Amino acid sequence: MLLQTINHPTTVKEFNLEQKIQLANEIRTFLIEEVSKTGGHLGPNLGVVELTIALHSVFNSPEDKMIWDVGHQSYVHKILTGRWKQFSTLRCYKGLSGFPKCKESEHDVFETGHSSTSISAALGMAYAAKLNNESNHSIAIIGDGAMTGGIALEALNHAGQSDVNLIVILNDNEMSIAQNVGALSNYLTRMRTDPNYSRVKDDIEFILKKIPAIGSKMLKTAERIKDSLKYLFVSGMLFEELGFTYLGPIDGHNLEDLESTLQQAKRKKGPLLVHVITKKGKGYPPAEKNPDLFHGIGKFDIETGQSIKKQAPPSYTKVFGDTIVAIAADEQKIACITAAMPTGTGLTDFSKKYPERFFDVGIAEQHAVTLAAGLAKGGFIPVFAVYSTFLQRGYDQVLHDVCLQNIPVIFAVDRAGLVGQDGETHHGVFDLAYLRHIPNITIMMPKDENELRHMLYTAVQLKGPVVVRYPRLNGNGVDMSEELACLPIGRMEYINRGQDLSIIALGPMLSIAQDVASRLETRDFTVNILNARFVKPLDEETLDALANLGAPIIIIEEHVLQGGLGSAILEYYEQAGRRNLKIKRYGIPDKFIEHGDRLELLSQIGLTAEQITEEISQFLPLKTQHV
Amino acid sequence: MLLQTINHPTTVKEFNLEQKIQLANEIRTFLIEEVSKTGGHLGPNLGVVELTIALHSVFNSPEDKMIWDVGHQSYVHKILTGRWKQFSTLRCYKGLSGFPKCKESEHDVFETGHSSTSISAALGMAYAAKLNNESNHSIAIIGDGAMTGGIALEALNHAGQSDVNLIVILNDNEMSIAQNVGALSNYLTRMRTDPNYSRVKDDIEFILKKIPAIGSKMLKTAERIKDSLKYLFVSGMLFEELGFTYLGPIDGHNLEDLESTLQQAKRKKGPLLVHVITKKGKGYPPAEKNPDLFHGIGKFDIETGQSIKKQAPPSYTKVFGDTIVAIAADEQKIACITAAMPTGTGLTDFSKKYPERFFDVGIAEQHAVTLAAGLAKGGFIPVFAVYSTFLQRGYDQVLHDVCLQNIPVIFAVDRAGLVGQDGETHHGVFDLAYLRHIPNITIMMPKDENELRHMLYTAVQLKGPVVVRYPRLNGNGVDMSEELACLPIGRMEYINRGQDLSIIALGPMLSIAQDVASRLETRDFTVNILNARFVKPLDEETLDALANLGAPIIIIEEHVLQGGLGSAILEYYEQAGRRNLKIKRYGIPDKFIEHGDRLELLSQIGLTAEQITEEISQFLPLKTQHV
Repeated sequence: MLLQTINHPTTVKEFNLEQKIQLANEIRTFLIEEVSKTGGHLGPNLGVVELTIALHSVFNSPEDKMIWDVGHQSYVHKILTGRWKQFSTLRCYKGLSGFPKCKESEHDVFETGHSSTSISAALGMAYAAKLNNESNHSIAIIGDGAMTGGIALEALNHAGQSDVNLIVILNDNEMSIAQNVGALSNYLTRMRTDPNYSRVKDDIEFILKKIPAIGSKMLKTAERIKDSLKYLFVSGMLFEELGFTYLGPIDGHNLEDLESTLQQAKRKKGPLLVHVITKKGKGYPPAEKNPDLFHGIGKFDIETGQSIKKQAPPSYTKVFGDTIVAIAADEQKIACITAAMPTGTGLTDFSKKYPERFFDVGIAEQHAVTLAAGLAKGGFIPVFAVYSTFLQRGYDQVLHDVCLQNIPVIFAVDRAGLVGQDGETHHGVFDLAYLRHIPNITIMMPKDENELRHMLYTAVQLKGPVVVRYPRLNGNGVDMSEELACLPIGRMEYINRGQDLSIIALGPMLSIAQDVASRLETRDFTVNILNARFVKPLDEETLDALANLGAPIIIIEEHVLQGGLGSAILEYYEQAGRRNLKIKRYGIPDKFIEHGDRLELLSQIGLTAEQITEEISQFLPLKTQHV
Repeated sequence: MLLQTINHPTTVKEFNLEQKIQLANEIRTFLIEEVSKTGGHLGPNLGVVELTIALHSVFNSPEDKMIWDVGHQSYVHKILTGRWKQFSTLRCYKGLSGFPKCKESEHDVFETGHSSTSISAALGMAYAAKLNNESNHSIAIIGDGAMTGGIALEALNHAGQSDVNLIVILNDNEMSIAQNVGALSNYLTRMRTDPNYSRVKDDIEFILKKIPAIGSKMLKTAERIKDSLKYLFVSGMLFEELGFTYLGPIDGHNLEDLESTLQQAKRKKGPLLVHVITKKGKGYPPAEKNPDLFHGIGKFDIETGQSIKKQAPPSYTKVFGDTIVAIAADEQKIACITAAMPTGTGLTDFSKKYPERFFDVGIAEQHAVTLAAGLAKGGFIPVFAVYSTFLQRGYDQVLHDVCLQNIPVIFAVDRAGLVGQDGETHHGVFDLAYLRHIPNITIMMPKDENELRHMLYTAVQLKGPVVVRYPRLNGNGVDMSEELACLPIGRMEYINRGQDLSIIALGPMLSIAQDVASRLETRDFTVNILNARFVKPLDEETLDALANLGAPIIIIEEHVLQGGLGSAILEYYEQAGRRNLKIKRYGIPDKFIEHGDRLELLSQIGLTAEQITEEISQFLPLKTQHV
């Protein structure tokens, strides 16, 4: 096994072509085996095996900086930089991350997770190198999907006029996560599929030589045409227009072509784009056939390519998708928007049933939000389904384009709370803090999958900006109501009534609240349990009642403690002039939470019934006062 | 005066060409006179006089939707829709807004203020029209500067593959606010300046006719060339590549050309871009000569074009600019970044003195932040100078690309607090709420312009993500220290010591705190006055001391009450288990604050010494308890 001899990226430089091809095969087998056991982003990594080998053959990491856009395609890079030994811990708590992490290796020079940041980062590093009189290269490896993200386009625009050693590797696999959309994608497809793009170039040269015969007064024009044609037929024209030297398109699974093109790129000066055509899932038929499914996958059976899933109630995502299809049947003005994640956000059924009201805008969260605002102005009720962590990209648009005009846009904010294995770049634990202070917004979170349905129905009736956030979890398996009903706006729900303690819990934290209550009930305490339901507006009446009761109040939320539901409640009590209250908030501390199993992570930060019960017991001089 | 006959946009349709030219002149005179008295965005509006007349001549507002990107160039539109009568109230409290406002007129169909949103909004409205079976047009009027914003590029990418009646008017004035930057700008310049772009087209037709003579086997290739050349020489190729029909470039001050081109645009189907060349400040020599200065200007003398300014201490912006130049002399690793606002952010001197360390990235806040992250990784200490309201665009990048990696990027956040006349889209009153919950970040605000200098010096030493926020105000005229010093991190400053009340004030609110204290002192109360300095980390020691003192604590900040400094202090006291405290927070209530003079606005929301003193007097049973 050549793979097992690799401790450092220099190793691969010593291999000959035959060995590299063997190594590529070994890496594919290794990836399929390892990811089948841990889950992970298999498809993207199978697509970049040769590209990564070629990059490490031609460039010298870490002097040359490789920045992996999004970063979930960095497994091969991790293997080639000696981390294959840790692959059994991939995405586990304290194990190898599924994304580049500087603390893991000096070869991870910039951390990524969200899409489309690599060109900006690489450009910054390239400028720094220039100012430091260093001659190294900065290399952004970015997919064609990520290229449609606004920040990547902003960076292209800036980089195109620069004079630094920036290499953009456009990893064109015709996919972001789902099928790509947009004009840029169409353009790339034309370049890929027209075999004439390069052949025609030769023909042109021939014709141009004939032109002088036409008449000498045309000579000057002909010269100009020649220049322009060169431009036109060395495809990549669009990138050349923007100031990049364009190389490609080349076959991303041909190591020889890759290496010679990268060598050429290394010799040239100034910003340069190498267009590499790859295939997601390359070499593993189930992944080639279902690239969407194998983009990011849990454990699976290698033989069949089938996911190994335990029987479980439907996920919140699935319930969202089903509910919005159901609501849209009656409510003709519902339109759904996704930023390149129709499957991930549960909108596949909607997209099939109502294609004319479905918009996949590509990886473009900012545009998605303002497009929704435009649709709302046109009388529609747009639903933008998006992960909490990715809506961060659209924060300004939520505030400035939707809430300022107080128009009916529904944000279906999935993956709210800790997401587990994807880790610190993906946890949805900031959304309350970045949304709650925006005027006119309503924010809810359901206690279970059935309540999610009612919340979506309620959101549609509200006729204003609404956020419904829900976790990356399966539901509780509760019964589903026949009819959808409007929930009272800004009201909590009493789950249990008691005298000794009040617990306000948000979303899935309700189960912890119930567990805490059970533990305390065995010690003869009775507990008020409240399902918060709304983060904004707050249920002031119930908060007053809880204050009047005089029992300690605890608040549990799977969100940072700065600016979340607990803070909102503190603010309310201050504004209402309620003092002498015993309040304790539980949530996520002021640090980035690493990757790992969600329950493990919750336990590490003290968000378990056991830890909360113990702390409360000390925190409150209970029984003696209240009995 | 034709102008005075206009009550509705249909009026202009009835004018003949000669009358329209007269109207354009009248509007220019009117704008110059009015804006000289109120201040406002003169240059951009002088540039779009003919364009706006042509738009209202050809299209029917409000059925056809005109969306003014950024919106500060909507004055002519306001005049043509009958609002010229209110122009003396422009930008005044309860007067005409300097931006489109739906409540002002049915002809303002989408509110703008931040850059680059118009294509997304117009596309949403165009899709809505299509789904509603309406045949109206949605028209985004966007400058070439705004076109480099990521959301605009995301929207172009999506719109290019659509089949709706979307017209993008590219108002190309070679400027955003300052000189434009970036590859797109270079591209537009080539199109504008090369007279051959259209002439060559004719020559090409001639040559192509000759080509068959060369040999019949070339015929097929020749056809392809013909198609391609059409593409190439009808300039706009870049836009055509992206799926738009391109018309132009046309002279934006020639009414006849404008109208005939817009008529043509109106007849065509699908997404279309009209490239209009205009001149900022057109018709007013001082504004033509100094477009940067006249982009947005205060009152000025029409004769000389000189600003009418009262003698005043230097602005915080100026002090920032001077200080960063001074620090950069010693600290070679300082680099400064602006998103198209070198003058507005005070970086002009820096850009001249250290051009190689200065980056104007265009209107591209997201890219600016991640470029800074790249520079920081390369050993630099980047300073991104940006308005509070525009940093909202870079929220995700601050969190994900800077703070997650805990790298030294300094955010010089200007225009923090109420900005006055620009109103609700521009107030910098959310930044603490959207930044404070991000791990690893340090946030400060100075009490005066001298402290700003020390804070910048301190930020440079900190070697982590730092925000220094400061207001759109002139300084207090305080003495400037000779030496810059490092402030103790996370410590407040006692301004006065007392027993009866503690006031913690942030930034310019300190003057209100001092005024409140003076008023109370006349009634024999002594007041602790604290300059907060840091919003994060908090000064827990001092907060403990204040709690121990037992006197009521009030907190004053020019920021929304949700998630600001006051909330941070409430959170701390809750976490520290401090109860029975009398705390009262003063700040901005949960609504969007309109435009008007800052002091007027502060008074309207109760942020004055008088109102706070009165409320405190009731809020606290003072003297009797403490004497």
